[in-house]
Amino acid sequence: MKRLKAIIQYDGTGFAGYQVQPNSRTVQQELERVLTKMHKGLTVKVVASGRTDAGVHANGQVIHFDTDLQFPIDRWQRALNVQLPGDIRVLTVEEVSPNFHARYGTSGKVYRYKWGLGDVESPFKRHYVVHMPGVKVNIQRMRDASQAFLGTHDFTSFCSARTEVVDRVRTIKRLDLIEEGQDELHMVIEGDGFLYNMVRIIAGNLWEVGIGRREPSEMAAMLKAQDRKKAGKTAPAHGLYLENVFYK
Amino acid sequence: MKRLKAIIQYDGTGFAGYQVQPNSRTVQQELERVLTKMHKGLTVKVVASGRTDAGVHANGQVIHFDTDLQFPIDRWQRALNVQLPGDIRVLTVEEVSPNFHARYGTSGKVYRYKWGLGDVESPFKRHYVVHMPGVKVNIQRMRDASQAFLGTHDFTSFCSARTEVVDRVRTIKRLDLIEEGQDELHMVIEGDGFLYNMVRIIAGNLWEVGIGRREPSEMAAMLKAQDRKKAGKTAPAHGLYLENVFYK
Repeated sequence: MKRLKAIIQYDGTGFAGYQVQPNSRTVQQELERVLTKMHKGLTVKVVASGRTDAGVHANGQVIHFDTDLQFPIDRWQRALNVQLPGDIRVLTVEEVSPNFHARYGTSGKVYRYKWGLGDVESPFKRHYVVHMPGVKVNIQRMRDASQAFLGTHDFTSFCSARTEVVDRVRTIKRLDLIEEGQDELHMVIEGDGFLYNMVRIIAGNLWEVGIGRREPSEMAAMLKAQDRKKAGKTAPAHGLYLENVFYK
Repeated sequence: MKRLKAIIQYDGTGFAGYQVQPNSRTVQQELERVLTKMHKGLTVKVVASGRTDAGVHANGQVIHFDTDLQFPIDRWQRALNVQLPGDIRVLTVEEVSPNFHARYGTSGKVYRYKWGLGDVESPFKRHYVVHMPGVKVNIQRMRDASQAFLGTHDFTSFCSARTEVVDRVRTIKRLDLIEEGQDELHMVIEGDGFLYNMVRIIAGNLWEVGIGRREPSEMAAMLKAQDRKKAGKTAPAHGLYLENVFYK
């Protein structure tokens, strides 16, 4: 039995999220369907670095699975891509130690959030960039506000109230606001780990600062409150991309 | 009665082309549905610069329609966008002379064709760029071949055999091959008009030259033959964009 690690990309538009759920098309289900077929019906379990919600995209999601197929490692990527639907692509496949674990072994992740600032939403970006028409956004205010999140904090106010994880302390290493092309604004955030909806709630609050609905100084108070109700809205799913996953 | 001209953009993925046809979702049908609703059920006919096929996109399609609604001209764009589905966007609306005709008044058009050259097809571009994996393309050969199309020629060999138009003489003003970003190749072509499938057949033949399957010198002979069977394959629809339409 060998353990393989793969880096995958997906367009989240057509999926009810990453994780298998009944009567829904999910990324995990498509991966397991193809792998189970390659293993002649023997169920293959796929473990990812974490779930992504419906509509959320990935450029660098990491998965692992175990196989006893006698199949050269350099053929795996193409073999999987031939059978997978076009909205999931395998970028790399490598053999790893049986101790490697895509979920429990992570040491950090990078997410990107994309806003569109043009007057009219591009029909080509409607599933990929969150369009915010007719507002003037002050990026410097968002940068000022972002400072509050850097470092180690309890993110209870910035995760879904449904979060079951008890330890909500996370460390943010980097939080950049980048103007992209003619009319996009990207938030790039790197941390040791993220709670459920955390990136989207941070994005939603920074946006509210950018358009003058909140003050940069409110962020620190929200963190301190440790209460989801004290923070603003969750930004929409389709602007979010899982970019990179790091391992120890 | 006023005549309005609009520039529109659409993602061709979800349409069976531009033109109304029974039991299919088309761009014209969506436009006429919304306009007819705005005119309280009175049928409004929309005229475009030309059709586009299923899967073909537009960044600058031009349409016209007539209206007697008492509605300020600067409100039209937003009013249409509110009601249209997200895969069609109206960029501009202006009042024009009753003599303006979106189809018969054209003096030129620009199309763009996009190929993807990366190893793995991006899941985000699968409907927008034609991915050509695992081939080495020689762009200089394509540029050499493109010279044959410049100027005025009978394009019978480079239009669908189903073309009903009798006069197949067209003038190409510009044909550029442009490397875009890290792994895209674009063909930009401008002419006084284009026959059915003409851009896609030119693209398909230039591609065959690029990968060494044909010689640049074959293009002139193909044109001379005036026989569709003498030219190579039609390139796929989803790489094609109608970029601009010009009027006298």
